Amino acid sequence: MVAQLSTPGSHPEPAFLAACRRQPVPHTPIWIMRQAGRYLPEYRELRSKVDFVQLTRTPDLAAEVTMQPLRRFELDAAILFSDIMTPLQGMGVSLDFEPGPVVKDPVRSDAQIDALPELVPQRDVPFVMESIRLVRANVPRGAPLIGFAGAPFTLFCYLVCGRPSKEFGAARSFLYAHPGSSERLLDKLADAMAAYLRAQAEAGAQALMIFESWAGLLGPREFQRFALRAVKRTVAGLKDVGVPLIYYANNGGSVLDQVATLDVDVAGIDWRTPLSVARRTLGPDKAVQGNLDPAALFSAPEDLRRHVDIVLEEAGPAPGHVFNLGHGIWQDTDPDAVARLVDYVHEASIRAGVGKGARA
Amino acid sequence: MVAQLSTPGSHPEPAFLAACRRQPVPHTPIWIMRQAGRYLPEYRELRSKVDFVQLTRTPDLAAEVTMQPLRRFELDAAILFSDIMTPLQGMGVSLDFEPGPVVKDPVRSDAQIDALPELVPQRDVPFVMESIRLVRANVPRGAPLIGFAGAPFTLFCYLVCGRPSKEFGAARSFLYAHPGSSERLLDKLADAMAAYLRAQAEAGAQALMIFESWAGLLGPREFQRFALRAVKRTVAGLKDVGVPLIYYANNGGSVLDQVATLDVDVAGIDWRTPLSVARRTLGPDKAVQGNLDPAALFSAPEDLRRHVDIVLEEAGPAPGHVFNLGHGIWQDTDPDAVARLVDYVHEASIRAGVGKGARA
Repeated sequence: MVAQLSTPGSHPEPAFLAACRRQPVPHTPIWIMRQAGRYLPEYRELRSKVDFVQLTRTPDLAAEVTMQPLRRFELDAAILFSDIMTPLQGMGVSLDFEPGPVVKDPVRSDAQIDALPELVPQRDVPFVMESIRLVRANVPRGAPLIGFAGAPFTLFCYLVCGRPSKEFGAARSFLYAHPGSSERLLDKLADAMAAYLRAQAEAGAQALMIFESWAGLLGPREFQRFALRAVKRTVAGLKDVGVPLIYYANNGGSVLDQVATLDVDVAGIDWRTPLSVARRTLGPDKAVQGNLDPAALFSAPEDLRRHVDIVLEEAGPAPGHVFNLGHGIWQDTDPDAVARLVDYVHEASIRAGVGKGARA
Repeated sequence: MVAQLSTPGSHPEPAFLAACRRQPVPHTPIWIMRQAGRYLPEYRELRSKVDFVQLTRTPDLAAEVTMQPLRRFELDAAILFSDIMTPLQGMGVSLDFEPGPVVKDPVRSDAQIDALPELVPQRDVPFVMESIRLVRANVPRGAPLIGFAGAPFTLFCYLVCGRPSKEFGAARSFLYAHPGSSERLLDKLADAMAAYLRAQAEAGAQALMIFESWAGLLGPREFQRFALRAVKRTVAGLKDVGVPLIYYANNGGSVLDQVATLDVDVAGIDWRTPLSVARRTLGPDKAVQGNLDPAALFSAPEDLRRHVDIVLEEAGPAPGHVFNLGHGIWQDTDPDAVARLVDYVHEASIRAGVGKGARA
């Protein structure tokens, strides 16, 4: 299936996977957080006929949406179209999307924490693995497929707070008021996400990304005690899974030194932290992914190229850079700007000599 | 009026003002962002009878609300009850509060930028200065009064976006799409806020705080080009104002090195950056203000004391620490927790020997 990208004498694996492992690449690979989504007319058309949850639970449709951006743009990876709440629904958590996830009975008691069952992915969310198999069999250009899950603390925020909010006050006050119960809930979520991610890899996902969307809600001490401890448990449960692991801590600039201690291959960096600073803090053993400001896609074409140049320059010549936005793409983004971005990242990185290492 | 705190042989000025100037203090002073507000039953009672905008525009009532928390707690400073949009309303910007400010005609064109008039505080918002005079004449224990304004970029976000949002996408894309127009609008806002803050000091405000609530929306390059440049213009306009200036960059951890270059006396630090890190980055010429996580007020009393101890320890023994939360107090906070906090900060800082410098 990946024959096109791994013919003998050419590069042994797709640029995205090579970059995750800090191997030389022919060009800087690029994919885009939320690349399958509302900024694409073909997504909006499908979505006008099928509701969001149905889309994530129907393998044909989830695979179709996953592949839509790969048909339009020369992206170097696909990411499974799904939702971070999907495995929690599989564990019996009842929720609506309005459009953010709203949990009907927020988890606020030890009894509720105890009642949360183990996740058995093949039993509880089989459609996710089926979607992965469909993408692997059909994805354009044999592009590698990324599976994903929410990090335990991020899921905790939704579960405890009940509905997304700027501050997630109820979740953060629960941490302070009930630290022991919080740790128990986080442990359960950590184990569930390890099982969920492992099942995705077994079904064919070639890299696994863990989204810590709400890292920025916590000061460093609370991040360490709650968020980092829990995601370390998830990562420990994936030790022998055999595919690159990516951890993205949104708004995580003040905890990057902690991310450095996490046993993952790639750290996703938001747009607030220059990649040069991230490289310095993370050390030479991690690749970086990011981090163009999603707002930069609204620049004039020549300005966009300048913004891309800066990101490439800050990433530096060392291997191990996956280009991405620093946060999910906005729904009012012009798809033509995305096309310009993808082509320019490839072109500029080749011109800057990224491929030279690969030929050496 | 400040006789109680400045008797001969005692300290020459209130602890809050001394700390702002990095002078020795008898105890670590404390005040709380949004201390006049919805977590107080006496505020909610008044608010049930008078609408928010009316409250900010009626000097008797604004002064009353400003002083409410000073009657309950041994706070070391008062902050004027007002809204960061008040001066913009004075400049003719039409808006509603739902409850966040919603601008009826978001500013998106050069014509709108050009049409924005100069702010003449005594003509356009005289009630603000009258409120300040009333507080100065009546404030409990002669506590110093802080005046404030929004930083130019933060006001820009509201003006361009029209309504508050998590991402302020329309404002951020405007920066990238129209950098020159953005700079012009920011310059106008910078000059207006300099005039506004100067008028507050002339009316009796004893310190001035500039709120960069949305610092965290920008990467370091855009922060420097737009937000920092504009607030430097405001600060330059206040050079001879004679009262301490405080700049608070919420979620500003990745731009603290830039804050270090701003000619203000105090940097407000959110809860994500330990004060020890802030001190190191800012150097010895700035005091720090902060930075307990607002969520920590939901801890058990003994845990709250431990969290306070950590903040005091991270602030260190050097002069120049004003205790505060790292962000505004939440409306569901128990006022009794605030009482415990204020008393404990005084008690613990005296025990830790903060006052020794004052007596030396």
